[in-house]
Parts: sequence; structure tokens; C-alpha cells
Amino acid sequence: MNKGLSVAIVGATGAVGQEFLRLFELRNFPVESLKLLASARSVGKTSLFNGKEYPIEVAEPSAFDGVDVAFFSAGATRSKELVPAALEAGALVVDNSSAYRTAPEIPLVVPEVNPESILPENRLIAVPNCSAIILLMAVHPLRKLGKIDRLIVSTYQSASGGGAAMMRLLEDETKALVNGGDLPASPLKHRYAFNLFSHNTPINEDGYNEEEAKVIFESRKILGMPDLKVNVTCVRVPVLRAHTESVTVEFDGPAPSIEQVKEVLAASPGVQVIDDRTENRFPTPLDASGQGDVLVGRIRQDLSNPNAICMLVSGDQLLKGAALNAVQIAETVLSRSNSVA
Amino acid sequence: MNKGLSVAIVGATGAVGQEFLRLFELRNFPVESLKLLASARSVGKTSLFNGKEYPIEVAEPSAFDGVDVAFFSAGATRSKELVPAALEAGALVVDNSSAYRTAPEIPLVVPEVNPESILPENRLIAVPNCSAIILLMAVHPLRKLGKIDRLIVSTYQSASGGGAAMMRLLEDETKALVNGGDLPASPLKHRYAFNLFSHNTPINEDGYNEEEAKVIFESRKILGMPDLKVNVTCVRVPVLRAHTESVTVEFDGPAPSIEQVKEVLAASPGVQVIDDRTENRFPTPLDASGQGDVLVGRIRQDLSNPNAICMLVSGDQLLKGAALNAVQIAETVLSRSNSVA
Repeated sequence: MNKGLSVAIVGATGAVGQEFLRLFELRNFPVESLKLLASARSVGKTSLFNGKEYPIEVAEPSAFDGVDVAFFSAGATRSKELVPAALEAGALVVDNSSAYRTAPEIPLVVPEVNPESILPENRLIAVPNCSAIILLMAVHPLRKLGKIDRLIVSTYQSASGGGAAMMRLLEDETKALVNGGDLPASPLKHRYAFNLFSHNTPINEDGYNEEEAKVIFESRKILGMPDLKVNVTCVRVPVLRAHTESVTVEFDGPAPSIEQVKEVLAASPGVQVIDDRTENRFPTPLDASGQGDVLVGRIRQDLSNPNAICMLVSGDQLLKGAALNAVQIAETVLSRSNSVA
Repeated sequence: MNKGLSVAIVGATGAVGQEFLRLFELRNFPVESLKLLASARSVGKTSLFNGKEYPIEVAEPSAFDGVDVAFFSAGATRSKELVPAALEAGALVVDNSSAYRTAPEIPLVVPEVNPESILPENRLIAVPNCSAIILLMAVHPLRKLGKIDRLIVSTYQSASGGGAAMMRLLEDETKALVNGGDLPASPLKHRYAFNLFSHNTPINEDGYNEEEAKVIFESRKILGMPDLKVNVTCVRVPVLRAHTESVTVEFDGPAPSIEQVKEVLAASPGVQVIDDRTENRFPTPLDASGQGDVLVGRIRQDLSNPNAICMLVSGDQLLKGAALNAVQIAETVLSRSNSVA
């Protein structure tokens, strides 16, 4: 990464978009020039990067001329519309949206899990769903200890998964409730503050919402286990920016010992074990917020199945669940092209 | 229930204690005289019942003279201290605490599930743990459809399970956070507002907290299934007064159809099915708050196991999870003694 890059962010004003800027600084991502792209209604705004103000420009096909790396985080519709232009312009595209995740020829990558899925010819790489990334960061290392047969997952997902607007909604509703006052207008069918709800994406014919269908499909694709059994329930809770997941991992045979699980997880890059039974200290989404690592704790034998272990996982949805994973993908590709050069 | 009763509430100033008063009014519970008992520091306070103010008196052994029915909701230590005196005085005792739940000779009862566990000689009946009650209200009816082999449960428990003080803590912390200001003193090791945490009860040698151990033991005792397999993770979320649970029920053979499950649940007293896939309307703790019924939705096949179904359950922790279940127990006993008379 000796050469500075022309970098574009599509969705620069969003919650994930803003995290990219902080991560570029923090990780010394080799940005030489920066284009902050968003919808027309954001034009006129600016964002700070490395002490300099950058204007928001309109995300349109011509914006990608000369761009080396384009990070997309503006939803599937916008990605489908503009990714082809970015590829055409020669950019490496890392797409946070769901637009290309199911395409068999597009790698869907968590760099700690399946970096080998990125082939030299790949110029478009998809970032998985946030719940799937956080889940697999804790699950993948356990494959060293045995063949995994089934995952059972209940999520406690934060507002940030619904973007900056959902975070604001939670804060504004909460403020109105504790201070008295009218609740703000909401796209939800029920209150969010001091409440929780089944993930509000459309339900398929099997009764699963889109988020759950993503966790099932994407876990299988990323792990390369098309027959992996996945039981999943996705729930949104009144937490701002980190997702928590209650996870049971069922193995094909007797489960590894709790000590083995802790050891393997503690040695896994991007994972921190927080599991103090005496002090009752385990992962919380607040502890996970703002950190790149995924926190894992409550590691214990499943008393209902000798082949299974249970754990509680928390990860920052905006970082490892989105922007950080995307930057790591770009870094993986760039380090390879440098080592070839 | 033609004769008016002398009724005592131990823990009358607590969150559950206050619900008893509302329920007595709502259900025309035959209260002729009422004793509101609490610790010495509450003496001087009063509570309203049927438009009349009642003084708080000290909960002490002599307080039970002439009492017909005593409801205990002041924690296990206080129950162990005072229940013997109440029984000695001839009262029927319904105990909300965990003090007597594990004693084999004491019935542990959810009236919709195991009313037959109350024998004519029983003068002390234990109210189960709130998470267990809410779980079993949704699980027990499914026994009509097949033999249940295993339950897999992740809870989303409200502040009320920690009593009025925990509810106030959540409100006060939230207020401080949204308005700016110092966080109030807290008995927790981490923030509660906009956060969640593994249930903060002591962890046993298997890595399970007390709440989880209760759900396992009590489910088996109430259902009369000592070998029932139970996988459970208990988590406290920033919601005020209703618990939600993500539940997978594994049967001994092929799972019943979703239509059968819905039908059986809809016909079960105390259960409401809220399951509108088109409108994405499912149980929320806010909808469950203030209602006696337990809400069940997200009813669907477990795609990872042909023998299992999944559902999401919400129930008011203070009502069906505590005070309502206790009052129903008393009503069950009283209606039997009346029918014998």
C-alpha cells in the first residue's frame, strides 16, 4: 500500500459512511484523494477527514472517474444503480449492501473467515449482513474443534442497523417519553423506545423475515457449508450501535470443552473473550460499541445437548458489522496486489 | 367465594405488591379486610384500594393473626422468615419468591398448566419464576400436539423483574443520558440505559446464572417432565415491564403444522396469538404490558429441524409473571373449597 489511492464513499453521510472516515484515519488507509458521494439532497454538506473539509458530491455514474477503491453503503437499490459504473471506471468495489451477496460469482467476505474467497480477478466484493458477520466471527474459529452441524441464534439488534435515521428515532422517542412531549413521527408500527420488536423486514412464505433469511443464506455461503442448519430469530432492541447474539453451536459429535472453546476464541484475531463468572462480567453492546473486536462470553456447555455449547456475542454493527469489515476487505486485496507487484 | 376474606400482602410497596391491589379490584377478589405489610422503613406510607387509603404496617409474625390469604412478594429471605408464621396463623399462603419452589412437597403452579398439582391439604403454594411462567403459558398447550423433547430459549427480560428500584434505575439513567447530566448510582457493574446484559444473578459451576437455573428446574417441575431438555440464556434488556422470549420447541417426532400450533394456542386461556406476517405485527413487550394474557407470534417451522417450531412470546412480568398468577392460584383454591362446602 505504498501508493496513495483515490477513494470514494457512496453513502458518505450515513452512519456507516461516517465510520469509514474515522477508520481511514485510524488505520492509515492510503487515501490520497477522497470523494464523498451521497444523494442530491446532501449536496452542500461537508465532512471532516484528516482535519480537512470535504464537500458531499452527487453519487452518479460519472463520479467514479479515476477512483481506485469505492466503498458502497447506500442500500441495495443505489448499489445496483451505481456499482456497474464504478467497476467500469476500473475501481475496486466493496459493497456493504445486499445487492450482490447472493450472486454465486461475487465473493461474500469476512476477512478473518474466508479471505480465500477473494480471487485475483474479483473487482467487486460484497460485505455480509452485520448479524452474519458478528455471528461468524465467533463461530468460525470453533471449526478447528469439530464439524459444526447447526447454529441456533437469537439476536438483540441495535438501532444502527436501520441507519442514522433509526438511531435518531430511538433517541427522539426516548427523549419525548422521559421528558413528556409528543412522540416523533415514526416509520415503525409501534414504539421503539423501551420496547423491542421482531425485525421489521418483509416476511417470506416460511415465516422468516429478510434479516433472518440473510443470516441463513450468508452463513452458509461464507463458511462454504451449503447444508449448515441455521435456526435464527432476529429482534431489534432499544440499543444504539452494537448487536448482541445468543448463540448455540451444535457439533457433529461431542462438544469441545469450554476451556478449548475459550482458548481458540482468545487466539482468534478480531475476537475478545469476556467471560468472568465470578464477577459476572460478560459482553454488553455498550462495551462492544466503538471497538473493532467482537466480544464473546457466557461460554458454557449446552445442558440440553452434549454436542453443543452456548455463548453470548456482541459486536459493533457499524464497525465490524459494516465499515471495518469493508475496509479490511480492501486492505486484503491491496496487500495482495502489492505483494504481487 | 361468597364470604369476604381477610387478605395480607407482604411486600405491598413493591412493584408486584401494587399490582395485587389493582388486580383485586379488577377481578372482584373477595377482600373484606386488607393488611398491607412491608419493611419498617415503609411504615408511614399508605396505598389506595377501592378508594380507601390503607396504612403500610410492619411485616412481622404477629401481623398474620386472623388472615385468610397471604400473598408474599418480598423476596426469598423475607418469605423464609415469615411464611411459617402466616401458615401457623391458618392463612393460605401464595408465595411469589423462590424460597419454597424447589421443595418437592410444595406445589409450584401456573393455574392454566398444572392446577392439579394443588392438593386439598396444600396451604402453601409457590408462584414460579416469571420467565418460566411466560414460557410455559406458550409451551404447555403444544403438548396436545406431541411429546416435547427440548426447549431452546433466549430471554429479553424487562427491568420490572428486578423490582421497582430497577425500573427507576432504567428511567433515571435514561433521563440523565438523553438530557445530559450525571448518571445515578447503580448496583449494576455497567450502564443499563440503551444497553443489555446477561442476567446479573450469581453463576453456578456449569456457567448458568440463577435465573437460567430456575427456568430449567421450574419448567421440569411444573410440566412434570423431570427429563425435559432445556437450553436457556437469560438477558436483561432496557424495557420496563414485560418479558419477551425467543423459543424453539423440539418435539419427539415431526413437528405439528403451523396451523395446528396457532389453533391450539388461540384456544388456550390466557394466550393471545398475534401473528400477522403481511402487516409484520407480532408480540412486543409494550403490547404485553398491562395485560393478563401472554402474547405469542412469529410461529413458524424451525428450518434447521423438522421436529421443531419457533415462536416469540411476550408477557407482563408483573401480571402473569407474578401478581396475576398468584391471584389465580388463590382463586383456584378458593373456588374448590367453595364447591366442597
